This record gives sequence, structure tokens and C-alpha cells, in this order.
Amino acid sequence: MRDNGLVTIDWGTTNRRIFLLDAEGAVVRREADSQGVTAIPAGGFPDEMKRLRDRFGDVLFLLAGMIGSNRGWVEAPYARCPVTFESLRESLLWVEPGRTAIVPGACVDAGRTDVMRGEEVQLLGAVAAGLVARDALLCLPGTHAKWARVVDGVLTDFRTVMTGEMFALLRNHSLLAPQLSCDVAAGDAFRDGVRCGLADDALLSNLFGTRARILLGRLDPADAASYVSGLLLGADLRIGLDGAPRDPVGLIGDPALTHLYGAALDEAGRTHQEVDGEQAFLAGMAVLAEGIR
Amino acid sequence: MRDNGLVTIDWGTTNRRIFLLDAEGAVVRREADSQGVTAIPAGGFPDEMKRLRDRFGDVLFLLAGMIGSNRGWVEAPYARCPVTFESLRESLLWVEPGRTAIVPGACVDAGRTDVMRGEEVQLLGAVAAGLVARDALLCLPGTHAKWARVVDGVLTDFRTVMTGEMFALLRNHSLLAPQLSCDVAAGDAFRDGVRCGLADDALLSNLFGTRARILLGRLDPADAASYVSGLLLGADLRIGLDGAPRDPVGLIGDPALTHLYGAALDEAGRTHQEVDGEQAFLAGMAVLAEGIR
Repeated sequence: MRDNGLVTIDWGTTNRRIFLLDAEGAVVRREADSQGVTAIPAGGFPDEMKRLRDRFGDVLFLLAGMIGSNRGWVEAPYARCPVTFESLRESLLWVEPGRTAIVPGACVDAGRTDVMRGEEVQLLGAVAAGLVARDALLCLPGTHAKWARVVDGVLTDFRTVMTGEMFALLRNHSLLAPQLSCDVAAGDAFRDGVRCGLADDALLSNLFGTRARILLGRLDPADAASYVSGLLLGADLRIGLDGAPRDPVGLIGDPALTHLYGAALDEAGRTHQEVDGEQAFLAGMAVLAEGIR
Repeated sequence: MRDNGLVTIDWGTTNRRIFLLDAEGAVVRREADSQGVTAIPAGGFPDEMKRLRDRFGDVLFLLAGMIGSNRGWVEAPYARCPVTFESLRESLLWVEPGRTAIVPGACVDAGRTDVMRGEEVQLLGAVAAGLVARDALLCLPGTHAKWARVVDGVLTDFRTVMTGEMFALLRNHSLLAPQLSCDVAAGDAFRDGVRCGLADDALLSNLFGTRARILLGRLDPADAASYVSGLLLGADLRIGLDGAPRDPVGLIGDPALTHLYGAALDEAGRTHQEVDGEQAFLAGMAVLAEGIR
């Protein structure tokens, strides 16, 4: 019925990326579009899957990301940390038995609570591909930045920091918004912000302090966006680095963001390495598919 | 030309409160309206003052608040901490010599920067009226909450925390917004949030954790607004109480807000007293006017 190929989809809220791999795991076709889960009408996922099979062939489909959320096709219960490929494989949600499975997200539920969907494949994949050490601290910057601990190849713990969303809220809707329209650059103002954010847990006060710095002539309004970005990344690093001595920190994601995080880590006296997120995702999906095909 | 009365105006961004006091300092008339500084057209303040004099008489006018900001009538340079009635009086900006003065705001500019406009009158007035001790920690909850130290009757330091604005940003614009439409109550969920906010400096992570708690069934969505309010107030108290052993904390402001701050202070094991903000403002203005009339 189906050949030995594999389609993996990183199916997010607003976008998705589709990869067709041959039997040897080589990518033979890749597509990206804006058909995220919110673009698919309610009840429309089975039809969407038919269209995908018409285009990519009747192969095994592994879907990760928000497709398994309460806004997606079917809600896939989270795998609880510590998470391994084995625990993800056991928790696969087969929406079309033997043909299409949704990868569960991962959760922390031990006093503190946290959730992720999709990143767990990248994190374990980065280790599987040898892109990072088997004991590592990994960071995925973004709207909701993720900091994850991998111990002997196992995803043991992670923490989400709403850094990107907070910057967008401040830039678009806050009383600081008129001052935050400039571009962010990893220069002196950014580094000042990082140092302040790292030194001080008073984020809600430091953000207001940005306005005070401008009013008192201590900050050029043209640098305000960079300073605020630095404050947020400093606060983010305080959370993510807390008690984590491992270097280098693995940064996975959009180079424009990992560049800023790299500069912030420099300011914190930490080293980092850039990790290719697509390579990590594909490696993770390939390992997950082992023993299924 | 003018009699011995006094008009004091607490002239904010969107509202103002006007008090006519007789020679003995008793309030003989009070008004409140929405003619904040942003409601007055550019260049319109002299005409507005004429209208006020027609209504209230040709007495001394003392104006405090955003009227002295760069959005107001004339920008009044901040008095730098430590601030006393004497330093405020020396820094009065006479927009109509001998008749109308703008009270300078106060600033901190020593590494850390902060600014206020109008609250300085309430803070010093609360001490002058004997509403709080001459050594006190005072808190004015609000969009931009102020925590102030008064030492031997002198305003020595303060810190602004954008707690109220942050709650509004989260409630109106964030990915958490759909969960935050319920009312806030000082119940169990609020106190859980306060404890988490007090214990942990990871606000940007704890906020995302609210979503995780709901998804994992650890938080009733109906309690999410109270929990987030608690997280923010816990973070606010961490900043405001830092290194300040003095009890009781004086709470000045809207009873709906001081009630929540009082509950949060209870959770932090601190005592508080409610202070009447209008009484503090009028007492401060009366002392300022001494030696001028």
C-alpha cells in the first residue's frame, strides 16, 4: 500500500514545513506554506491529509507541532519529562492507523508546569545527529523561547520564556510603543540592557526605567528598542541559564534571533554554538520513524 | 489682586481633580473632570487657566502631575531625590509669576533612573499630615505602581513597576488574553500566583506557565485572571519590598487596588495600612503653599 518513504511535517499555528524523505532518509522534496493549523477549517484535516497524500505519495506521515494541540487535528496528550525517542514513539497518536501519526508534545508537570509541541523533536534530533553533546543546554529563541536540558541524550527539563511575545506587546501596544519602532541591533544599548536584565530581577521596573532613561537624557530614543530587547534577553537568560553550567549553549532557530541571543550570551560570559534547526528536526523525525516503517 | 485662598489641581493625563481651599486650608469646593492634559489642545493652557480663574477666583494655583510633563503646559524639570517640601518649593515652575506654579516631579538618577509626577506631593503630604510614620515604605498601586522610601520625612528613593499596564497588555493583547477575561478576586488562585511571583524571579516564564497550568488541568480557566494578577503583584512586591524592612507598608490609592495589594502583602507576611490619597495630596499642597501666599 505504501512505499518506504516518509513525510515529516513541522505543522505550526500559522505555517508548516513539509519534507519528503526517501528510504535512506535523504530529503527529496521540501515545501513551506502558510497552511498552519489555524488556516485549516474545523473538521478539515482528513481532507487536507488526502490532498497531502495525493501530492506526496502514500507513505508514512509523521506530524509534529501545534497539529496536536487543541486548535489542531486531534489533541495529542503530552509526553512527560524525562522524554526520549522511545517515550515519544510509544505516545504517537495514530490519526490514520499505520499511516499518519501525530508526535506528542512534551510537558513538565512537577510543581512547575510547562509545555512544548514540536521542539521536542528538534531537541532530541540535535543530540541524535551529533550536533550537540549528549549533555547540553539548548535554547530555541522565539515568541515563546524554550530552554531545555538534555542529560545523557534524554530531555529532562525545559522552561518557556515569553520573550518574543513580550517584546511584541511592548512594541505594539504599551506606553513605550512610540519609542520602540526602531530596529534592534546588538550594539552598546542592547548590551547595556542585557547587563541590566542579567543583574536585576526587576524586569517590570527596568522596563519603565527605559522611559525614565529617555526623559533624563540617559538613553537616545533611537536606541530604545535595542535597550528593551536587551533587558528582555537579559531576563530571559537569567531564567534559562539558572543553575546550568554546561557550555556551549546550543542555539537553534532563525539566525536573526540566534545572533541576538549569541551577543547576550557573550555579555553573560557564556559560549554558544549555532545548531541548524531543520537538520535537527529531520534527524529527530528519522529516528522516530525507525521501527515504524 | 488675589485673596488668600488656594486652588490645587492634580492634573493627570486623562483626568484632573480640582480643590479650592480657604485661608485656613479647608476644602470649600472640589471638582473632578476628564480635562486631563491630553484633552487640552496644543497652546491651549493659558486660555484654560483663564477659564479656571473665572470659575475659582484669582487665587494662587498650584498644579501637580502630568501638567508638568512634555505633554503638558510647560515641562518642569524633575527635583532629584532626596526630595523635601523645600526642594519642591525651590523648583516650582512659575508659569504665571506669583499666581500659577507647576510642581516639579521627582526623579532618581544615580545609575538607576526613575521618574514621577504628582505622587511626590502625596508621599510627602502623607508624612506631613501624620498619616504615616516619618520613616516609611509607601506604595501607590496603579498602571505604573510606585514604591517609595521616606526617611525622616524625606523622599529618598522610589521605584516604578509597570504592573497595571502589564496586566492590561496581557489581558487585551497577549496569547493569554482569551483566558484573562474573568474578574480578579483575592482568593486561592490569586494567592497561589502571589506566592509563585514572590518565590521566583522568572516572571516571563511564570506567565507562560499559566497557559501550561490550564492545559495540564492544574488551573481552572475561570481563575486565570486572578492567578496572573497574583503573579504580577508577587513580582511587584519582590521589587518594592526589596531590602525594605519597615512595616506597616502604607498603601495609597483606589480601594479596589489597595485591597489586592493588601492581600498580596498578607501573603508576603507583611502588614499594611490604608492611606487616604486625597487627604495626603491636600496636606502636601497646603505645606507647599506655606510661605508663598
